[in-house]
Amino acid sequence: MKGTQQSDRLTSQQKAAEGCVGIFDEEAQKHDKEVYNTSTITLQKLKQEFPKLSFRYRRGVTKKEINEALQKIDSRLGQTLFVPSARIKPDGGIIEVRDDYDNWRIIVVSEAKYQGKDIENIKKGKLVGVNNNQVLMAAGNAIERAHKNIHEIANLMLLETHFPYILFLEGSNFLTENVTIERPDGTTYTITYNDGTLNRLDRLTSANYGMPINMNLCKNKFVSHGELNIMLQAASIYTKGDGCHWKEEEMIEIMLDVARTSLNMLGKDLFKQLTNT
Amino acid sequence: MKGTQQSDRLTSQQKAAEGCVGIFDEEAQKHDKEVYNTSTITLQKLKQEFPKLSFRYRRGVTKKEINEALQKIDSRLGQTLFVPSARIKPDGGIIEVRDDYDNWRIIVVSEAKYQGKDIENIKKGKLVGVNNNQVLMAAGNAIERAHKNIHEIANLMLLETHFPYILFLEGSNFLTENVTIERPDGTTYTITYNDGTLNRLDRLTSANYGMPINMNLCKNKFVSHGELNIMLQAASIYTKGDGCHWKEEEMIEIMLDVARTSLNMLGKDLFKQLTNT
Repeated sequence: MKGTQQSDRLTSQQKAAEGCVGIFDEEAQKHDKEVYNTSTITLQKLKQEFPKLSFRYRRGVTKKEINEALQKIDSRLGQTLFVPSARIKPDGGIIEVRDDYDNWRIIVVSEAKYQGKDIENIKKGKLVGVNNNQVLMAAGNAIERAHKNIHEIANLMLLETHFPYILFLEGSNFLTENVTIERPDGTTYTITYNDGTLNRLDRLTSANYGMPINMNLCKNKFVSHGELNIMLQAASIYTKGDGCHWKEEEMIEIMLDVARTSLNMLGKDLFKQLTNT
Repeated sequence: MKGTQQSDRLTSQQKAAEGCVGIFDEEAQKHDKEVYNTSTITLQKLKQEFPKLSFRYRRGVTKKEINEALQKIDSRLGQTLFVPSARIKPDGGIIEVRDDYDNWRIIVVSEAKYQGKDIENIKKGKLVGVNNNQVLMAAGNAIERAHKNIHEIANLMLLETHFPYILFLEGSNFLTENVTIERPDGTTYTITYNDGTLNRLDRLTSANYGMPINMNLCKNKFVSHGELNIMLQAASIYTKGDGCHWKEEEMIEIMLDVARTSLNMLGKDLFKQLTNT
């Protein structure tokens, strides 16, 4: 499998070089495309692991379908649609399983975001900014757009007790530890992970209610207070906190982990297929 | 009050000219600043209307405070903070009331977003695009960032049964009806509201579960299904669907309407102050 070979090559290069940061450059930009590849590989692995179940992959979902799901819950919901063709396309797409009642149920949704090229820039000895005299580029806020698709899928899955949304992050705006980079002239520069001009992780953590990142949060939490009982749909946010590049097999392992949690949560509605009854 | 005079002037100009689109240009860019002004006027009006209650205004809230609120609900939540100074600042700020137990409770949060200059461009006879030969500018997606603050405030208010978040929209990306504009040479051009290159309302409606826009959705809906009982925190999305500019008094009226709903929902915890008991 091409993906796996590539990742193996990266691993051996890494060991020989200065850590993963050394082979970061070329691979980084492929991030968005790769999450599609890893999804389709994950789909194949699920078919092997659960041969009694049927799976399918979709690139996206229309707003019309989301509206219909909301209308079934309550007729006051899902009423508005301005552009008839409106759809959402999390870049890793959607993996579904067919339940015992012929409904397709979502078990993995993934999106990959790359933001912050500071590691590459420093490695090249390239200064940035209007006057080309800054080491670091102040981070943008485009990552905040990630919340939209998370919210759309949460609405589509409002009656499920699992929420298998995975957000893979990579780049200097999503570090969780300091990273030291060597410049071409041999000097080094250390990026401080919690520098406010760079770190954008806090812009995302409302999507997981401030629960830990790099954790499978697929199984919904319920919190209660007085008469209220609230279901939390939390995105599972995974970041390459050391500035490395995601390896395909790492992403696949996370997707499989989340898929297994989804299938477990759906067990009641998969029972007949699993037991041939 | 300056704001009111200005709006009156606009109204009389409008009647004389070609509808509100005629006086759109200068005012549009002030939109973001105005929502701050309208919030402070709303605060004053609330003080007059409810003299027994105490109100305050805040520009924003720290992630630390949001985390603390989440931790009180459940110790698994609100654990992450990467940039210690991280905060959110919805541009209209936050209005709060003091309850009978000395807690400040949120009653209005507002944010104003302007996106799409097509009406102004057509009015000036200005063509756009790389080769300056297009009438319309393909809309951007920056508006999707609005979801972040909505989610943060929803988390902060997870135990409230009201969600007083108002999103004021304006610009050619948020039309709900066709708008005909006259060019300097006397010809006209009609913008079709549901043109997929322009309309971005569908990028926002996950925040109100596809419920109608231009409606006060402050009182949370509850939907139930089987053993699940789910509370929906829906943003109240208001748009100038005819391409007009928001008038201060219109925004204030909407803010007051939402504030009154919040106060009503909080009535149990304001009772002592309202009845001097």
